[in-house]
Amino acid sequence: MNQNEAAHVGDIKGFSSRAPRIDSGRLRRLMDGVNAFGRNEATGGFNRTGFSDADMAVRDWFQAEMAADGLSVWRDGVANLFGRYGPGTGPVIMAGSHLDTVPEGGAYDGALGVCVALECVRAMKDAGFVPDTAIEVVATSEEEGRFGGMLGSQTIAGKVTREWLENARDANGVALADAMQKQGLDAREALRGARDPATVRCFLELHVEQGPVLDGRNIQIGIADAISGVCNLHVSFIGTANHSGTTPMDMRADAFMGLARFAGEIEAIIAANGTKDSRITIGKVDLSPNFPHTVPGKAECTVNIRDTDPSAQERLTGRVEEAARNAARNAGLKIEIAQISWLDPVRLDEGLLSLLREEADALGYGNVVMASGAGHDAQTMQSLCASGLIFVPSIGGISHSPEELTRWEDIEKGAQLMLNALARLAKH
Amino acid sequence: MNQNEAAHVGDIKGFSSRAPRIDSGRLRRLMDGVNAFGRNEATGGFNRTGFSDADMAVRDWFQAEMAADGLSVWRDGVANLFGRYGPGTGPVIMAGSHLDTVPEGGAYDGALGVCVALECVRAMKDAGFVPDTAIEVVATSEEEGRFGGMLGSQTIAGKVTREWLENARDANGVALADAMQKQGLDAREALRGARDPATVRCFLELHVEQGPVLDGRNIQIGIADAISGVCNLHVSFIGTANHSGTTPMDMRADAFMGLARFAGEIEAIIAANGTKDSRITIGKVDLSPNFPHTVPGKAECTVNIRDTDPSAQERLTGRVEEAARNAARNAGLKIEIAQISWLDPVRLDEGLLSLLREEADALGYGNVVMASGAGHDAQTMQSLCASGLIFVPSIGGISHSPEELTRWEDIEKGAQLMLNALARLAKH
Repeated sequence: MNQNEAAHVGDIKGFSSRAPRIDSGRLRRLMDGVNAFGRNEATGGFNRTGFSDADMAVRDWFQAEMAADGLSVWRDGVANLFGRYGPGTGPVIMAGSHLDTVPEGGAYDGALGVCVALECVRAMKDAGFVPDTAIEVVATSEEEGRFGGMLGSQTIAGKVTREWLENARDANGVALADAMQKQGLDAREALRGARDPATVRCFLELHVEQGPVLDGRNIQIGIADAISGVCNLHVSFIGTANHSGTTPMDMRADAFMGLARFAGEIEAIIAANGTKDSRITIGKVDLSPNFPHTVPGKAECTVNIRDTDPSAQERLTGRVEEAARNAARNAGLKIEIAQISWLDPVRLDEGLLSLLREEADALGYGNVVMASGAGHDAQTMQSLCASGLIFVPSIGGISHSPEELTRWEDIEKGAQLMLNALARLAKH
Repeated sequence: MNQNEAAHVGDIKGFSSRAPRIDSGRLRRLMDGVNAFGRNEATGGFNRTGFSDADMAVRDWFQAEMAADGLSVWRDGVANLFGRYGPGTGPVIMAGSHLDTVPEGGAYDGALGVCVALECVRAMKDAGFVPDTAIEVVATSEEEGRFGGMLGSQTIAGKVTREWLENARDANGVALADAMQKQGLDAREALRGARDPATVRCFLELHVEQGPVLDGRNIQIGIADAISGVCNLHVSFIGTANHSGTTPMDMRADAFMGLARFAGEIEAIIAANGTKDSRITIGKVDLSPNFPHTVPGKAECTVNIRDTDPSAQERLTGRVEEAARNAARNAGLKIEIAQISWLDPVRLDEGLLSLLREEADALGYGNVVMASGAGHDAQTMQSLCASGLIFVPSIGGISHSPEELTRWEDIEKGAQLMLNALARLAKH
């Protein structure tokens, strides 16, 4: 940042009457507009899964909103939607998040970050604030991983591989390529959509925390310094299905007992090998035959291992596999362990982290630096450009659910922080 | 037993050329005939669930077989099928088992006992053996508990209650009354079908062990002294579903972790409170939402508790409930425990037990007195009359599966033991 730019940012902050301000009502109407798409009236959940009709329809609607605001709008080949405000040439400061949801998702996850980015531009326009560096609002596609990745931001960052592209399928077996073709898209565009790093100066994302930390500690703003890596294991304990009455306890090979013993080790594994950001979760368990009167012959489970420290993530994964093998051996079971996926932890840009903390402090908002346990577009974008991530509180930490909720007063604070940060970044 | 009859029994045992002998080939053909019904060619499993079309069809076929042998055949109102050989009046010695199967069951469970009973009568006829007390072959209905009980033998023993009858449904929600009506049967007949105890002197059943004990110890014959009671619990651990990445370990209410800790206590509960016949099984586990990236919000399981000692069964059930509550409390979970069913252990008739041991010893068959961990018609019949239960080995203990198998040489021995026991009982 040169002297001149610093002075200009000072101007904005010094003259509050001219400083852009978030219009809460307008932001709320924009959110309502987005959430008119994919809503399940029966459950209150939102269904805009990647490349679904609702996902494509909300993109059309949001594109029209941005166009009406005078932004230069365009899409890339994988339906990432962009709206540029400010200079028509030169690099951009990108801001946004995703418009797709998980099945029966909440109103805020992703949508809020996209709407806040556009509201920031609208607030700049209202205040007559003309950025020196263009602001580019982005609504990424397929962030929620219907097909197992983050297709939109990975395309922008040039991180899509041909192998993944050709094999990616959703939980129902639908191929990514087929789902995209149904929407008139060619999946191969994902290999051609990478942005030149010289054209994107940085990326800022606002997102709901999706966890209980901010709400539990009554802090308005979280600023992410890192995003946890994720390792997913699939573990099968294999014993013998037998009659629950006729099989003496000492003649059993009870697959569930092996799994239960293994699960009982997880707390100790973290205590001995983990960090404050370690998370290990057995989220899915499937027994076979899963019948009350039958000793389980097979017990399958997923193990989701996360940490912000790459070496801790490796260590935890090794200990988890070792504990599973030991539990199987002790229970007389066979075991199969498959590593389904591995994502390294990502450290976000330190300069943007400092800037966000300064702006939050200047606004008088309580804030805390924290790791993100969930994956976000910002982690992919960090491989392309300096990236930053702002969290607003999720009440009770509830996420990926119709009950997901963020207080409107917290949304306003997060949006204002995003606006001030973008304004400061845009003035040089 | 009068002098004349005793002499006749002596004749049979003394003169082996005239003693009834099992015709192994004929028994095998009879089994093949029964197992032509309900066979799934794709899996090799048998599907003659209670009151299904295949179950009714096999009864018609078996009834015709018995009629062709000259037996007096009849059915009661719940499709229990009887065939009487010997004196047309006076009490009977009942022998048999059930013809229905679990879904995708094996070839031997139930069917073998029915076929052996008829083969015993055929062997008596071949040998010119005329019983002083009639032998009544029985093929009970609905033993496998499609509707949660043992309708056939419970009807004979007068153990069906109106409340159960009106509420019984199968796993698909089909009412017992509807399933019976579809086959032209009136479920209310179950309340009117009890046999007068004076008309049934005793009941003998041959059944595959369904467990690994005889096969593992290379013993040909098991003679049951007791049948375990069964308590079924349904336990729900209730926590909070949360994101696996954003929810710190110490802010979780992980329902599966509560279940796993509880499961880890079962071995110790048996060691401290059980008997050699104690069995505790968690056979069915269902997590919600059961998604790899979500901390389980709910973990439901069944707990199947069996013992031959009524006080041990009560003690174990109490300790299991206590351990589940403790595990829930320690994991910050709510818990719901429902006792789904309770069956007391049953001691079988000691006189018949001694008679079966004597006959097995006389035949030179290795035999062992053992408890039955599974439920059988004999346990219900014991409430009506003296009852006995012969086991033949199940290879590997495999049961309720197309892989269920009993060696033919073991079947012959079990059948011959049944024949000798019936012949001895029938001669007085």
